[in-house]
Parts: sequence; C-alpha cells; structure tokens
Amino acid sequence: MKRLLITGAAGNMGKAMRQRLGHLAETIRISDIAPLDDAAANEEPFACDLADSDAVLRMVEGCDGILHFGGVPSENTFASILDSNIRGLHNLYEAARKHSKPRILFASSNHTVGFYRQDQFIGVDQPTRPDGLYGASKCFGEGLAQMYFHKFGQETAIVRIGACWPRPTTVRMLSIWLSFDDMASLAERVFKAPYLGCPTIWGVSDNQPKWWDNSASAYLGWVPKDSSEIYRSELERNPGIPDRGSSQAKWQGGGFVDDPIYTEPPRALNR
Amino acid sequence: MKRLLITGAAGNMGKAMRQRLGHLAETIRISDIAPLDDAAANEEPFACDLADSDAVLRMVEGCDGILHFGGVPSENTFASILDSNIRGLHNLYEAARKHSKPRILFASSNHTVGFYRQDQFIGVDQPTRPDGLYGASKCFGEGLAQMYFHKFGQETAIVRIGACWPRPTTVRMLSIWLSFDDMASLAERVFKAPYLGCPTIWGVSDNQPKWWDNSASAYLGWVPKDSSEIYRSELERNPGIPDRGSSQAKWQGGGFVDDPIYTEPPRALNR
Amino acid sequence: MKRLLITGAAGNMGKAMRQRLGHLAETIRISDIAPLDDAAANEEPFACDLADSDAVLRMVEGCDGILHFGGVPSENTFASILDSNIRGLHNLYEAARKHSKPRILFASSNHTVGFYRQDQFIGVDQPTRPDGLYGASKCFGEGLAQMYFHKFGQETAIVRIGACWPRPTTVRMLSIWLSFDDMASLAERVFKAPYLGCPTIWGVSDNQPKWWDNSASAYLGWVPKDSSEIYRSELERNPGIPDRGSSQAKWQGGGFVDDPIYTEPPRALNR
Amino acid sequence: MKRLLITGAAGNMGKAMRQRLGHLAETIRISDIAPLDDAAANEEPFACDLADSDAVLRMVEGCDGILHFGGVPSENTFASILDSNIRGLHNLYEAARKHSKPRILFASSNHTVGFYRQDQFIGVDQPTRPDGLYGASKCFGEGLAQMYFHKFGQETAIVRIGACWPRPTTVRMLSIWLSFDDMASLAERVFKAPYLGCPTIWGVSDNQPKWWDNSASAYLGWVPKDSSEIYRSELERNPGIPDRGSSQAKWQGGGFVDDPIYTEPPRALNR
Amino acid sequence: MKRLLITGAAGNMGKAMRQRLGHLAETIRISDIAPLDDAAANEEPFACDLADSDAVLRMVEGCDGILHFGGVPSENTFASILDSNIRGLHNLYEAARKHSKPRILFASSNHTVGFYRQDQFIGVDQPTRPDGLYGASKCFGEGLAQMYFHKFGQETAIVRIGACWPRPTTVRMLSIWLSFDDMASLAERVFKAPYLGCPTIWGVSDNQPKWWDNSASAYLGWVPKDSSEIYRSELERNPGIPDRGSSQAKWQGGGFVDDPIYTEPPRALNR
Amino acid sequence: MKRLLITGAAGNMGKAMRQRLGHLAETIRISDIAPLDDAAANEEPFACDLADSDAVLRMVEGCDGILHFGGVPSENTFASILDSNIRGLHNLYEAARKHSKPRILFASSNHTVGFYRQDQFIGVDQPTRPDGLYGASKCFGEGLAQMYFHKFGQETAIVRIGACWPRPTTVRMLSIWLSFDDMASLAERVFKAPYLGCPTIWGVSDNQPKWWDNSASAYLGWVPKDSSEIYRSELERNPGIPDRGSSQAKWQGGGFVDDPIYTEPPRALNR
Repeated sequence: MKRLLITGAAGNMGKAMRQRLGHLAETIRISDIAPLDDAAANEEPFACDLADSDAVLRMVEGCDGILHFGGVPSENTFASILDSNIRGLHNLYEAARKHSKPRILFASSNHTVGFYRQDQFIGVDQPTRPDGLYGASKCFGEGLAQMYFHKFGQETAIVRIGACWPRPTTVRMLSIWLSFDDMASLAERVFKAPYLGCPTIWGVSDNQPKWWDNSASAYLGWVPKDSSEIYRSELERNPGIPDRGSSQAKWQGGGFVDDPIYTEPPRALNR
Repeated sequence: MKRLLITGAAGNMGKAMRQRLGHLAETIRISDIAPLDDAAANEEPFACDLADSDAVLRMVEGCDGILHFGGVPSENTFASILDSNIRGLHNLYEAARKHSKPRILFASSNHTVGFYRQDQFIGVDQPTRPDGLYGASKCFGEGLAQMYFHKFGQETAIVRIGACWPRPTTVRMLSIWLSFDDMASLAERVFKAPYLGCPTIWGVSDNQPKWWDNSASAYLGWVPKDSSEIYRSELERNPGIPDRGSSQAKWQGGGFVDDPIYTEPPRALNR
Repeated sequence: MKRLLITGAAGNMGKAMRQRLGHLAETIRISDIAPLDDAAANEEPFACDLADSDAVLRMVEGCDGILHFGGVPSENTFASILDSNIRGLHNLYEAARKHSKPRILFASSNHTVGFYRQDQFIGVDQPTRPDGLYGASKCFGEGLAQMYFHKFGQETAIVRIGACWPRPTTVRMLSIWLSFDDMASLAERVFKAPYLGCPTIWGVSDNQPKWWDNSASAYLGWVPKDSSEIYRSELERNPGIPDRGSSQAKWQGGGFVDDPIYTEPPRALNR
Repeated sequence: MKRLLITGAAGNMGKAMRQRLGHLAETIRISDIAPLDDAAANEEPFACDLADSDAVLRMVEGCDGILHFGGVPSENTFASILDSNIRGLHNLYEAARKHSKPRILFASSNHTVGFYRQDQFIGVDQPTRPDGLYGASKCFGEGLAQMYFHKFGQETAIVRIGACWPRPTTVRMLSIWLSFDDMASLAERVFKAPYLGCPTIWGVSDNQPKWWDNSASAYLGWVPKDSSEIYRSELERNPGIPDRGSSQAKWQGGGFVDDPIYTEPPRALNR
Repeated sequence: MKRLLITGAAGNMGKAMRQRLGHLAETIRISDIAPLDDAAANEEPFACDLADSDAVLRMVEGCDGILHFGGVPSENTFASILDSNIRGLHNLYEAARKHSKPRILFASSNHTVGFYRQDQFIGVDQPTRPDGLYGASKCFGEGLAQMYFHKFGQETAIVRIGACWPRPTTVRMLSIWLSFDDMASLAERVFKAPYLGCPTIWGVSDNQPKWWDNSASAYLGWVPKDSSEIYRSELERNPGIPDRGSSQAKWQGGGFVDDPIYTEPPRALNR
Repeated sequence: MKRLLITGAAGNMGKAMRQRLGHLAETIRISDIAPLDDAAANEEPFACDLADSDAVLRMVEGCDGILHFGGVPSENTFASILDSNIRGLHNLYEAARKHSKPRILFASSNHTVGFYRQDQFIGVDQPTRPDGLYGASKCFGEGLAQMYFHKFGQETAIVRIGACWPRPTTVRMLSIWLSFDDMASLAERVFKAPYLGCPTIWGVSDNQPKWWDNSASAYLGWVPKDSSEIYRSELERNPGIPDRGSSQAKWQGGGFVDDPIYTEPPRALNR
C-alpha cells in the first residue's frame, strides 16, 4: 500500500499497531483527536475530530487502507458516543466512498454481545445483545459497514475485539484477551486477502477458554499465536476468581452489564 | 391502560391506529412534530420533537404503553435520521426508563434486511442487512431496545413493518403489505400479552407470497387476517410486474437498495 | 384391532378417550389403580397397580395397542413418581416386549420442557428442561421409549400433552390446551399410520398462541381442529391475565416451576 | 408469453397441463417422442427425441418458457435414463442458453430423496438420497440447472414432483399427491414471478400428511388448494394400509427403494 | 475447598481421581458402598449406600464440591439401576439442596447416545438415544441435574464419560478413551470456573477419531492433552479391527446396543 | 487386502498414490486408459476404458478395495464427461455390486461447490453448486454412490479433492491444496475404518485458510499433517495475489466459474 490510515493512533492499540504494521505501507497516516507528537519517520500525523465531516474527508483522501480504532472505546455518555461512534463512523464511510473505497478494518467490540452468558458459545451470525450504549453504537456501525458493502462494494473487516491490551489483567480477560501481535497478524491478513467481503471476526487470541466461533472467517487464514493461559495462575490469585453470581463471572460483557446510563463521562474502569 | 401514547400520530399509520385502538386506554396521548388539530374526545395531543429530550420525558410521563411510530419513515439525509431515529429513540427509551417502563411497540422496518433477495425466506434471528441509512438507524434502534430489555427489563415489541398502507400499490407490496387492521390486532396482542419479552416480529399480513418466518413470535397468538391476494390481478396489470433484474423484482428492500446517500431530503417515493 | 388397552382409564382423559375411541378395537381393556365400575359393553376392566410387574404383564397380554395414560399426572412425592412413572413404565415396556410389541401412545408432558420461557418456540429435538420430579420422570420415560424402539423395534408415539381438559381454564392454558376430540384424532392417526417409528409429538390443539413446532410429526397427517381462542375473552376477565413476572406469565411450565420437592402428596392444583 | 414449450406433451401430466395452461401463451409448442395427433388450435406439435441435440435446438427456438416434463419418468435401464434424462437435459439447457434463456420449469422428482424415511420432515437444502438410477439422474439435472443459473443466469424452477395423477391410488400417495390443478397453478406462479432464481420446490398438494417443508419457495406465493384427504378412507380399505415394515410404509421413495438395476425396460409399476 | 466428596471412591476412576485431585481440598471425603480401607492422610472415608437417603444426607454435609462417580457403572438389572442411579441420584441432589448446593460433577455416560452411529458427529444438544437401562437412567440423571439448576440454582457439570481407563483396550475405545489425567484436569476446571451453569460435556481425550463436538463447553477452557493414537497399531492387531457390520464397528454404544434386559446382574464385560 | 485397484493410475495423483500405498495390499491392480509401462513388482497393469462395461467388470473382479481416480479430471466437452464420469462411474458401481462390493474411495471434486464464495465456510451437507459440466458430473457421481450405499450397502468415501499436486502453485491453492502424503493417509484410514458408511470428505491439507468444515468425517480420525503456509510468501510474489474481483479471488471454484461450455477438449489450464 501507498498509504495506510490508522485512526485512534494515540491510543494504546493504535500505538501498538504503529509499531507492528509500519511495513504495510510506504506512509502511515496517523490520526487522533489527541496530540500526536511522536510520529516516526514514515508516519504522517493528521489531527482530526471524527465528528467533523470535512476533516474526515481530507483525512481519508489518498489512503489505500484504514485501520479504524478511533472513537469512544468504552461506555460513555450518549452525546460522546453519538459524536464519535455514530456520526464519526458515518463520516468515515462517506469519506471512503468518495475516495476509492479503501479497505477498512473496523474495531467493533464484544460489547455487541455482552448479554450472552459466558457458557454460551456463539457465532458471528447470532443476534447481537449489546450491553450498553457503547455496544449499541457498534451495532449501528456493523449495520453501516454491511450496508456500504452491499450497496457500494466497500469492503470492511468488522473485528469484534475482546480486550486488546499488553496482557490480561483479570480472570474474565483470560477468555477475551487479544494480544497486540495477534491483532497485527489479523490486520495483515485483512489487507492482503484476495477477497475480503464484509466478514465479522472475533478479535481474540488462541486462549484456552473460548466463547466465540471464528470458523466463518477461517477463509482469511488468520491463526492467532498467543494464549492467555500463561497468566492464569497469577490472575486466579490476584485479582482472583470473580465471585460466583457476579457479572464478571456470568456475562460475556462482564461489568459493562451493570453500567448505568452515564450523564457525564465515566472515569476509566478496569474490567 | 390508563394512557397509551402514540407517536407519529399525524402520519398515515398513526391516524389509522388512533381510529382502531382507542379502546385500549382511557386516554390516548397523540404526539407528532406535525400539527395535530383533529384530536378525538379521548385523545390528548402533545406536540413533540423527538430530538428534544426534555420534551420526550414529559411526553412519556404518565403513559402505560407506547406505540412508537414517530421518526423519519424512509430513506433521508443522515442529519434527519440521526435526530429522529437515533437521538430521538434514545430519548424515548430514557424517558421510558425514568417513567416505570411502559411497554413499547417500536416500529422497525423491513429495510433492516433489504439486502436479502426475495427468494430468501428468513427468520428474525438472521443477521441484519440494511439497505440504507434509514435501515441502519433501525439496526441501532433494535439493538437499543434489546439492551434496555436485558439491562433494565424494559419490554419492547420490535415490529419490522413491511408496508402499512390502506392497500398494496405495487407487485412487490403483495409480499410485504400489512393492513391497518392487522397492525391493530398485533398491537392489541402486544399490550395484552402476559409476558412480552423483547421479540422481533415481522409486521406483515397473511399474504400468499411470504419472505419472512414469524414462528418465533407465535407465542403472542397474533394471526393476521388480511391478504394482499385480492389486489394481485389489478397490480400485475398496473403498475405491472417489475422488470426481471430490477431491484423491485429481486431485493426485499426493493428500490431502497438503489437509493443514493441523500445530502438533502428526498422527495417522497412510491416503491 | 382386537384389543386396545387404555391405562389410567378412570381418569378424566381416560374416560374421555373411552367415549371417543371405542371403535378402534373390538375390545377395550380399561385399566386403573382406581375402581372401574362403569365399564361399557365392549370394555374389559383390569385393575392394576403399575408398580406390580406381574400384574402389568397380564394386563398387556393380548393387546394390539396401548394408550398409556396411567401413572402420576402431576408433581408429587418422589416415591409416588418412582413407583408409577419410572418403575411402572419399565414394567409396561417389558410387558410389551414380551407380548408382541403392540404400538404404544405414551402420555409424556409439557413439563419435560417447563423451564423454557413462553417466548421460546421450540421443536421436539431441543434439549429437555424439566420443571420438577414429574417432568424428570417423563424424561426417563421418553429415553426408555427411544431405547426400546432402537433396540427392539417397539414403536411409540411420545405425546407431550399440554393440558387435556374439557376446556381451558386459565390464560396460560390458551396456549397449551388439547381438546379431547383432538387427542382422540391423534390417537387414531397413531394406530393407523403405516409407519410410526418413535416420534415425539406436541399434544396441543390448533390454538392461536403457539409455543411448539409440530412439523417433525407432520407425516402422521394429524391436524387438530379445535382452538382455545373462543375462550380467550372470558378467561382474560376471569381468572384474568396473570401478573407480569409471575411464573404463569413467563414459563412454559407455569406454576410447576415454583413447586417445592414434595415430601407428602400435594393437594390438587389448578395451574 | 408468445410461445410456451411443453415437453413430454403426450404423457398424462403433459396432457393435463395443456388443458389447463393454454392461456399462458399465444402458442403452445407441444413436443414428445411419442406421436402427438391431438393438437388443439393454439398448439404447435414438434416431434423430438431429447437425445438429438440438433432437434432440441430447433425445438427450443422461439420459446419464451419451457415446461420440461420430457424424459424417462420412472426407474429404467441406465441406457434409457442416460439418453433422456442426462444427455437430453444437457441438450435442453444448451438450447436454452443459445436461445435467450427462457424460464424453465424442470420436473425433478421425490426420488432424489427416496431414501429418507417417511417420519423425516425435510427441506430442499438437505442432501439428496436418491433411490435408483432415475433419482440419480435427477440429481444430475438439479446440479445442471443450478450451474446454468449461477454461470449464465438461466432461471429454473426445480420441481420435485411427488405423484401427479388424477387422484391418489395408494395410501403412500396420500402424502405425495400433486393434483393437476395445483401443478398448473404452480406453473403460473413460476412464469409470472418477477424474480424466480433457481428454487427447488416440493411439488405436492395441500395434503394432511406432510414430509416436505416448502417454506424456502414461499416467496412465489404458490398455495396448493387440493388435499388427498377425501380419498383416505377409500384407499385405507383398498388397496389398504401397507404392511408395517414394507418399503411402501417406511421410505419416502416407496417401492423404488426395492427396485433392481434394470437391464431391460421394466414394465410399468404401480407404487 | 474445605472438603471435596468423591463417591464411587473404591472404583477405578475414583481411585485414580483420589491420586490426582487431593490438592483441590483440605479434606477429601471418600465414599463407596464397597470397603475403603486405603484412605490417605487427608482422606475421610464414609461408607454409604446411595439408596439410603439419610446416609446420603450425612455424606454430603459439610462438602464444598462433589465428584459423583458412584452408582452402577454399566448395564445391569433394572432393580440395581433404579436403586443406585435413579433413587440414589435423587438422594444426592436432595442432600446437596439441603446443604448449600456444592458444585457437582456428575458422571453421565456416552450410553445416553449409544444408538447414534459412529459416523455421526453430534453435539450435546442433540436428542439422547440411550442404548439400555443404564443409559436411560443417565437420561433421568441429566434431566434431574438440569431441573435442580433451573429451579434451585444448583450447578452441575454433566460429564458424558466415554471410557475412563488406564489405556484403551479396543479399537472402538480409540474414539472414546478418556485418560485419568484428562479427567482430572477437567475436574479442576469445573471446580475453579467462575461460572459453571449446568453444561453437558463430552468426557473424552484428544483422540484423533472424534464423534463428539465439545464446543458448547469451550468456555471452561478444558483442553485434554492425551491421545489414544499411540495405542492404535497395537490394538488394530490385538484385539483387532472389529468386524464390519458388528455393533462394535457401527454404533457409538458398541456392544451395549446388543445387551439384553438383564434379570440378574451381568458378569463384567469388556467392550 | 489381497488386491487394491487404482484407476487413473497413469495420472499424477495415481502415480503418487502408487508410491505411497503399495503396502495396503499384496497386489495393486493399476488401471488407466493411457499406457502403463512402469509397473512395479507388486503392480498388475490393466488397461481399461471406463466407458466399456465389460472391461470394467473384469477390472474390478478380485479386488478388495478401489481408489477411483479415473475419468476426466477437469472441465471438458460433455461427450468426454458423459463417457468417463457418468457412464464410466455407473460401470464401476455395477462391477463393484457384482463383485462383493469392495470399498471405494471416489475422487469427487471441490467443483461440486465452485459457486460458493471464498468467504463462505461450508459443510458437506450444504447443497451443491457446481461450476461446470465437470462439477455437475460429480454431483451425479455423489448421488450414485449414496444410492448404492442405501440400496445395496456398498460403502464409499466421497472425497471432494481440492487440488492434489506436489505443491500449491497459486494463491487460491493455498486454501485447497491437498498434499500427496495427506491424500495417502486419508486412503489408509478409509480402508482401515471398522465402519465407513458413505461419508463426504473434504480432501484438503491442514492449510491455514479454510473454506470447508470436515467435522462430519472426524470419526475416521484422519488428521492431515501438511500445510500450504510455507509456500505463501513465494506465491504471493509469483504468480501473485489475484486481482480483487477476479474469479480466482472470489469463488471457491476459481477460474472454472468462467469456463465456457466446451465443444472441443480444452487445453490444460492452470488455475
């Protein structure tokens, strides 16, 4: 690729992907609403508020591929979610449609299905059960991506990310952890695939406990290499196995199912 | 019920339901953004812009049930859809949550699945395939309703309405027509059911050609009585059988699949 | 048939079937643990405790078909259920195996699936979810019937009866009522079918609200004729629509899901 | 239509359709390998051996629609089946491809699934289980039709006909009978449908005992009107209910499952 | 755990688990109807007849977890099965209900599905097809466990054990062998899982030939480590590949499908 | 085995199997329509045109197993396909039926499903969608094999071979490559299995990108060992990733979906 756009490039996942995916394009256009003062040699910073359609249009121009990590990453006020994840996503797809439809990897979330229990093994074709406004905004995003695919041929990999962090930090995360390396290898496959279409993919490493069936996207040949199992004994001691009957123990969405409807931005949570 | 709220009460479907469902409550609160100067004796007009959260909160107060037909009813600009169908729906559910969670019948749409072909027989559990921004907004709405149900116990009947008009006017409508009487009998069952949950229901009469499997909501005991078949011969002559290969002939969403992304409000269309 | 055996012949359903199915055989052997002093001309009383294997062996001898309604018909002490529905059923199948394997219609129950919610539409192939010891005993019975079929070729129609009474008496029964006439027409089909195999059949009339999919036994050509709908308005007034959130409103098994484990026989219940 | 081709026009089903479907086109081209000396006013006889590709090419020229009943209608020698049902069908599709791809109604058969038991309720998407060479030839035909659809856009209605006779003559036929009138109404829907695609349809009347799920073709709006039930009591007496354990009683294909591999043409059989 | 109960502790599997799972609790209460004269330091023997409800009540008191291997382990007389596997199991669940509902691992069996053929790949949600009275008693047990879960919140891991022996001894056992180590690691996961629910689990090692789909319990993160493959060449020589057409070759239940209904206890069989 | 027949023994796959499977029988009868002048010590050449039924009958006589690779291996004229793959296959099954029904491994093809897209993950039970006359002839062959199994007990392993070559040579082949060693190990399992039945098996190595679900034949215990992944980087450079939108990129059948209906034999193609 000539130019790959990474939105949300100042976030943890954005930074980790910039380190790992620089070889995918001659130039990596990095974008965020937060400052980006650490650009590498082949990186091209582009400050952008996703809610600003003109800015988004310019941001997408000239890009051959998009890693869309931007937007609100967790439960928040409806106003924030509306601006970033709904209005912002529409801006992105309109910009892509007007600029040659570069492939998009769209970071959706396991919180589209947070109200399935942990003993339910689900495929990507089962109905969504979002656990909050954040999850509902991702349902909109998935529908939007599907629509742009069927209507305009815009290809998107919808990746329902579990928890993409340096390492798992709770027992629940043993089931949903996605390592940075596995996220990176997935992105490679998405941009190299001869045919992508518009698959929904569970973004999760090769952990032993499994909630999600990824066979529908097996055609991509993505095989995650990391496993959370090496962290199990440590995490079972600290922070410990969650209480039986708690949301952390029972629901795929964990603590999100308990969230209130926020009227002001929540402080960061560890789930 | 003491008070039943009907939103979109100045529209065709709203008017038709006001005529048929007055007996369901002592008072029918009728609401619309358009003027409501034809209130009947037991009707209580309440002008309201759904995008105004305070107004919506007052509108819902004191209601035991809600027929939510309000919002943009067809493909439109993103700004319009965002205000009415996304922000407006969130306002409605927040208002319901704060006011004792009256049962809601939410008018969703067949345009959540417009990109299925007409030779596909689908159930409510199959993934959505919206055919435009309008359809994508309804995907958000269905996700929101599911979330309020699982999180707060708010019951909703999600009704994917086919085409609710006095009579079918095209050959495609022979498959998706929902008569006013059948819509009314469905509403009765929804409000009388001992347990509602949060079902998704195909809002369609007992037409001979069928695209949709309603067995998942058979527990409600709703049995539509009307059939489009009596209009077939007339419609096959005029406007006539759609051309083979046209969207009207092939896709469940009909002409919606051809719609552009509107930058200004479209003129009304007959599909 | 030469001789048709009806067990539980002194019960309500037994009596109703004796009135309707006398033409199926030259002699109707009627059996019960309770006295049978009202035998008709072609009826042959045979008092029998199902827990007595020798008596059961004699009871079955010479019969070409068996309508097995005997046993405990509702939640009860484990001792009662064990004797009648487990030991008794084993006695019956052993007797049938030793006496030419007459076809059996086995009265199983909707309480094998009582822990499905009323908004779940289920087929006979979905896992059982019994709501008490009575329901669990029927799971044993269904397994026993399947085993005798696969191992010995013994044919059985496993009929999961909803509520077979003269008329429905609660709103929940609008969904599960089986009229005596429909039960009788089912029995006719079962004994006349060229091939029966070992189907599981939902024993329910053609009611409007439906929980159960009977397509797997459509080959029998049984089409129930009665509908509970004519009783709806009366029952919605009295005893009335059950409270939202009550077991009567939510679970297929109704009040059975609330039953304790009985230590002495319960008084008759109206559910 | 200008011209509708009916092959196998000298057979029973061909004759019955000529009587009922003359209104579908200005001219009905009737074809058979047997003599056709009873042409009606708007009928145009065309003698043709399906194994002769040049003749088939001329036969199809100028036709807007094809009812393909020609070929060997039952189990036969492999040589006969090869010529008529395999080579002949290929000739037909090649001719159609070269002559504007008129819609085809292809008479397939229940003998594609003859090795399902009668207590199995099957849809058109389940794997075929042919019961003889005739059934296997129809598997080829169905595959060929699917291929011409996906590769060239040739539309076909694959109709798995049960038993299309003036009336059912055996108890097994109570389940599979297709009346001439229902066959005719199906043909009308097939040729009038805005979009046909390449559905597989069970060709069976509205009989009470059902083996086959036609929901996948419900979009055509075909609703058969006749039922075999009026013939039941007569047929249960004569020829009588088939013996338990016989192929007539157990298999969907009836006596075909017992057929040998013929080395010379079999005499006509009544199954 | 403070105290873990192992029933059937004098049997082969019980002994093997005592050796491997001593670390799971401070005290292991070991119980059997047979003598237990080999108790280790942290083991607490408790002789108990499962049919004695008072004894079972005392046996369960004070336990935090139960490994229930007790009962008749193979086909037997109905009287034996009734006492141990039906009455005994009810006693166990009643005791658990009265004593704080410790988690139970219940040893069910592949003989609940013995009448599936070996070329059928089945999940835990498919209907049971028991191959004898032993298998039918396990159908009762599974139903009972499900009922106590839904009704009282009692968690159980229903483990359908294949063949838990030191090593496989027949070719059929190559498909169903469960090593002692894998059984032990499964038990660990069951007692450590934050949420257990009431899953049905195929108790089978990571053998190459597979009949059973365990994805429904993948959430537990149990990954068996052993494989029967190392024993293949030896077993194919001796005792040798079973005859084509034999029960050992065709049915999942192997020789159990041929068992008679025992009237006296069978001698031990090697299957 | 005493004697194993390999048809198509002069072809690439035939030769590769002769090298690897000589140990399966005392004598390997090798057959082809092409000359076989390289017979090894235990090989018994038998020149045979599959269209010649008498020759085929002699070819099969005395064989205990058949590896059927003979016939036209790719898209071709209908006349060639008819003779080799339809008439020839019928000759083979008739010969097998007359000579003790030796087990057959029948080389079917992925071109039975060539019109599925590459992003569809399919099982063997989904309907076929052949991509040409070659694929349609294999649909006939699969039906024929099923019929001989149900009717006569003839066991066949239907192997839908992806691309069995020394190594993959295109990017599409990374998904469908079957190594010679994996083909050989599959053949071993097929001939050694105690029960074979008539499974359909995807003949594909353990490649990372997967289109096909082989769980239905997991009972055979076949575990392919090779993976195409080692060839990926080379093939992505040369011949390179196929153009987006090309048949090579989109359809499982690759270039076959573009093939014309041949009127003379096509030159060999590299797909």
